[in-house]
Amino acid sequence: MKLPRNTIRRLSHYLRCLDILDLKGVQLVKSRELACMCRVSDSLVRRDLSYFGDFGKKGVGYNLPELRERILQIMGLNKVRKVVLCGVGNIGTALLRYPFKERNFEIIAAFDTDPKKIGMVINGIRVYPAEKTSELTRELGVEIGIIAVPPEAAQKTADLLAEGGIEGILSFALIPIEPKKDVVIQYVEIATELEILSFEIEERKRRR
Amino acid sequence: MKLPRNTIRRLSHYLRCLDILDLKGVQLVKSRELACMCRVSDSLVRRDLSYFGDFGKKGVGYNLPELRERILQIMGLNKVRKVVLCGVGNIGTALLRYPFKERNFEIIAAFDTDPKKIGMVINGIRVYPAEKTSELTRELGVEIGIIAVPPEAAQKTADLLAEGGIEGILSFALIPIEPKKDVVIQYVEIATELEILSFEIEERKRRR
Repeated sequence: MKLPRNTIRRLSHYLRCLDILDLKGVQLVKSRELACMCRVSDSLVRRDLSYFGDFGKKGVGYNLPELRERILQIMGLNKVRKVVLCGVGNIGTALLRYPFKERNFEIIAAFDTDPKKIGMVINGIRVYPAEKTSELTRELGVEIGIIAVPPEAAQKTADLLAEGGIEGILSFALIPIEPKKDVVIQYVEIATELEILSFEIEERKRRR
Repeated sequence: MKLPRNTIRRLSHYLRCLDILDLKGVQLVKSRELACMCRVSDSLVRRDLSYFGDFGKKGVGYNLPELRERILQIMGLNKVRKVVLCGVGNIGTALLRYPFKERNFEIIAAFDTDPKKIGMVINGIRVYPAEKTSELTRELGVEIGIIAVPPEAAQKTADLLAEGGIEGILSFALIPIEPKKDVVIQYVEIATELEILSFEIEERKRRR
């Protein structure tokens, strides 16, 4: 069973909504409520959730704690994942201050080449020299590396992470990275997001 | 004709590849080459491009300048779009330094509430007081607003941008924004990207 990428993205959104409903003490949630909160169609929610077997009771809804637990399990979010950050520039510093811990991702170390940054502690996270990347990644049992270095250093950084036994990379660098040793790579492409926005603005104009 | 969201995302990737091939002086490009550069299948490239009519000549390939021009036109990227940035924190500062101009997006002003930041010029872009957002957005004919403010200020910032006649918003804030006045909203969700990565790591483990 191969889940569509968009279903996975929506599962993450459903989780946010389930968290909010959970705080309100909701025990049963209808696909319509989730659909409304996530601004998607009712039938899409039902289709997405049907991938994981039969949760819902017709007319009653889904058992919220069960559904939440199942999504967490499928997405591998029911345990804390160790993360390292490579590159403590503007984006890197912002990421160190990001509340990832709430979502079970814990940044436990950062790396940079700048001697002025090495030894700094930001939001409780220490900055180590970049040449320690492989060694520390392996020693600390890190699963995910975030790359926020300049484009020209991205491939080298990815290679160091792969050597350290990393499982996945989230890259903010502007260039594609050649994956090594079965590492999963996910990109955050800000310019692409702007381009998609641009397309949708044009679409809306065309429809007017 | 409604283009799938993923096709639009891939068009942006194709553009990157066409730019690279263009620099090399390539005049004809085969779907196989584009597929290989973007790491997608041959048939997917052909399907994506077929949305825009018949470009390619069988066995010969696509005329590169024509194809590039057509994608730029469809995505509304054949003219410079004016952008403002709201929130000059870590992510905001990183965005001001981002080379968006290469992609025809020009950040022409930034806004913040912090008196220490107002009047600063970063990468040639001046920081104005947040209460000027609507006025300046309208005066300058801005189309896109980037929101990089703390979550609690996100909705208010979006409202100010909407009042200023903005067409689209790219939000880095961690909460959903209620759109006003027909504004297109696009999110950059870093935590969601990490969750998708987490899912793929688990999938790979399950397959081993």
